[in-house]
Amino acid sequence: MSLDAVLSRIDTDLDAALDRLMTLLRIPSISTDPAYKAQCEAAADWLVADLESLGVTATKRATPGHPMVVGHVEGDGPHLLFYGHYDVQPVDPLNLWDRDPFDPQVQDTAKGRVIRGRGSADDKGQLMTFVEACRAWKAVHGTLPCRITFFFEGEEESGSPSLVPFMKENAEELTADFALICDTGLFDSRVPAITTMLRGLLGEELTIRAADKDLHSGMYGGAAINPIRVLSRIIAALHDDQGRVTVPQFYDGVPELPETLKAQWAELGFDAQRFLGGVDLSEPAGERDYSALEQIWSRPTCDVNGIWGGYAGDGFKTVLPAEASAKISFRLVGDQDPLVIRENFRAMVRGMLPPDCTVEFKGHGASKAGAFDTSDPAFEAARLALSDEWPDNAAFIGCGGSIPIAGHFARLLGVTPMLIGFGKDDDQIHSPNEKYDVESFHKGMRSWARVLAALAG
Amino acid sequence: MSLDAVLSRIDTDLDAALDRLMTLLRIPSISTDPAYKAQCEAAADWLVADLESLGVTATKRATPGHPMVVGHVEGDGPHLLFYGHYDVQPVDPLNLWDRDPFDPQVQDTAKGRVIRGRGSADDKGQLMTFVEACRAWKAVHGTLPCRITFFFEGEEESGSPSLVPFMKENAEELTADFALICDTGLFDSRVPAITTMLRGLLGEELTIRAADKDLHSGMYGGAAINPIRVLSRIIAALHDDQGRVTVPQFYDGVPELPETLKAQWAELGFDAQRFLGGVDLSEPAGERDYSALEQIWSRPTCDVNGIWGGYAGDGFKTVLPAEASAKISFRLVGDQDPLVIRENFRAMVRGMLPPDCTVEFKGHGASKAGAFDTSDPAFEAARLALSDEWPDNAAFIGCGGSIPIAGHFARLLGVTPMLIGFGKDDDQIHSPNEKYDVESFHKGMRSWARVLAALAG
Repeated sequence: MSLDAVLSRIDTDLDAALDRLMTLLRIPSISTDPAYKAQCEAAADWLVADLESLGVTATKRATPGHPMVVGHVEGDGPHLLFYGHYDVQPVDPLNLWDRDPFDPQVQDTAKGRVIRGRGSADDKGQLMTFVEACRAWKAVHGTLPCRITFFFEGEEESGSPSLVPFMKENAEELTADFALICDTGLFDSRVPAITTMLRGLLGEELTIRAADKDLHSGMYGGAAINPIRVLSRIIAALHDDQGRVTVPQFYDGVPELPETLKAQWAELGFDAQRFLGGVDLSEPAGERDYSALEQIWSRPTCDVNGIWGGYAGDGFKTVLPAEASAKISFRLVGDQDPLVIRENFRAMVRGMLPPDCTVEFKGHGASKAGAFDTSDPAFEAARLALSDEWPDNAAFIGCGGSIPIAGHFARLLGVTPMLIGFGKDDDQIHSPNEKYDVESFHKGMRSWARVLAALAG
Repeated sequence: MSLDAVLSRIDTDLDAALDRLMTLLRIPSISTDPAYKAQCEAAADWLVADLESLGVTATKRATPGHPMVVGHVEGDGPHLLFYGHYDVQPVDPLNLWDRDPFDPQVQDTAKGRVIRGRGSADDKGQLMTFVEACRAWKAVHGTLPCRITFFFEGEEESGSPSLVPFMKENAEELTADFALICDTGLFDSRVPAITTMLRGLLGEELTIRAADKDLHSGMYGGAAINPIRVLSRIIAALHDDQGRVTVPQFYDGVPELPETLKAQWAELGFDAQRFLGGVDLSEPAGERDYSALEQIWSRPTCDVNGIWGGYAGDGFKTVLPAEASAKISFRLVGDQDPLVIRENFRAMVRGMLPPDCTVEFKGHGASKAGAFDTSDPAFEAARLALSDEWPDNAAFIGCGGSIPIAGHFARLLGVTPMLIGFGKDDDQIHSPNEKYDVESFHKGMRSWARVLAALAG
């Protein structure tokens, strides 16, 4: 097998590959908002057609939510499964975007060419790096290098409610030797990475209610309890003055970082000032006595993702609102149990409620953290293949985000997940003006060709 | 002058008066929202035309904001000025209204007939009680009972930015013997009231900013400061565990209630359980050691009227927002100085900002509390006139709300304000499903006829 011919084909086909990605990016497949249900279907249909153009037997598979796309191609050697997700985050606040999030464009910037648009980095652009590597391989060799299963999800940004049932029902079909997952980042622009440690995620939404209607703050203010004040007091109490989360038993199952990993991470030369400076911050704001890298990779967190209540329009309204709400998420590590934390969090909130107040909770997904075994020689082979493509050698790293799918492959199917991705810290995923570097896309395709050659070898 | 004939005329003309009010209520004159500028103009035009139909020389007077309406009719006896406001509160949350807020309707309810619609009680319905009393007087007598100036504002619900300049520029025209203000309530459905003590109001809006964009809470959560958490901590710190406001020097100028007034209020038999129970609450939530009546009439407060930041839509978005905002208001009493409190509040907030955070403030109006002299015999005459109309005798009472206009008449023009109104605690002003009892409207008109007779006497 000539790897060089595949790499050349990727180089010459880059513009066409960008065009194909643009077509996918134009589909506003926002999974969390029911208004975009048809667009999620359309993105799945597009992927089925694209896989079929590679000779893959692909189908759209219905779920109670958005559909899965599953494709198979036979071959010798190891059986690889590739996972990506075609759904994207909401785009608000829309006024902070420089252009229509779903009218993507390749732009020249001071830092190089970028693909601008919602989903360019998370995860459509990443997903397509693998598909395009396969396309080039097929063009050069007429076949793909080994047996490959493609598995695309449409609910990753909305808690993946259909994923576990689907994996259980289709366990045999989805079981492979390795699950390649492309939804993570480079360590930096020179150092590619295989992510071996992921935080879990627990999402909670709560609404505090008091009076049975909005009140006039002049008539009732002073005597009537204010749900925004109650909610603020609860949120303020979720951390102590050392930055530690105060939910009872929250730190049960949180391991201290092994000295070996601590040493390896120290060698990475992570620059906290540069990381935070990139978003106009300067000081790590998490737990005292932990480095910024530990705060984002190996320590658990509690954050408020949204808050609302009362009047938020122009001008002023002297309302004393009947209710106030917040969305709160916990990033989990080690053996923290999301369901135990959910119960303890809810009990803590109920214990802080003053008279006349009630609280309603809505759970939004609960996934444990993952730390994956890298002892199989395939990991070192993949690391060397990545190192060939990028200026510096690849590293095994942690990641602050949550990719529950990785844990599901390991726990439900016994498949070892291998997380390789090409995103950068400044991609602004989940934010306005999301982008994906053309370099990430181009070298990402080339990286997958190298990894396929190494694993199929 | 035959008062009885005027009262009879009011009775027989009730349906027509209700029709006129409905026409005014259909104009969505929301002053705080610039989208309704034309509708505010339309409401002013309607009032000018209606006053002219009474033989009043009326004009719409431009301001930098919404227009004033000023009308004059000559006559003997005292010169009375009547003030009301034609603007209304916003209507959100619209989904909590049982009908279109600007499609008013007279409805039969278990508690009697009500006029349902935004502005029915605050303040269009109240304003029209006086206009209709004048209409009946004119119909019976051919003239009004004395010299009257009508003065209608269109910015009361948005901080009255044009009011003081307008009063200063037109001081001579607006100076009268008494300023009758109809924007307050009955003590209860049997006891009418002249309000002699009003709280002041200070409105502040603040936005806390941290990172230069919304961040992914997985990638940055733990290391990046969260503005919602910062804002919640500030709000939680604004009260101590005794319910006292913690802004430095906040209680400077707050008087203890005189024993005489305390005794008079005790005689009113205010039922805190009933007052709070009416909105599904049970316990006074304000400062310990003060009664619910003191908490709403004679004690200062700090309340949060709105809060927003991050993702508030359906589903979940693991965003770490770049900013979070709140609208906070202070109700003031005695000699509390709103400008000093504004500075101390802002300094306190700045002092609580963690590294990497900034705060932006927007001031929304600042008015001192008012306590008005009732020694002029006209007050007792008006009290007796009101007592003739209602089941029980009228009382001099306090009011938790802020009616800055009353203080402006006293301080800027030396005119004694007399606050008489017919609203009820369950009118749901500033809330969905605002209403005004037909009884309030009908007996309100009759009350004004009696008060006019007593004052013009």
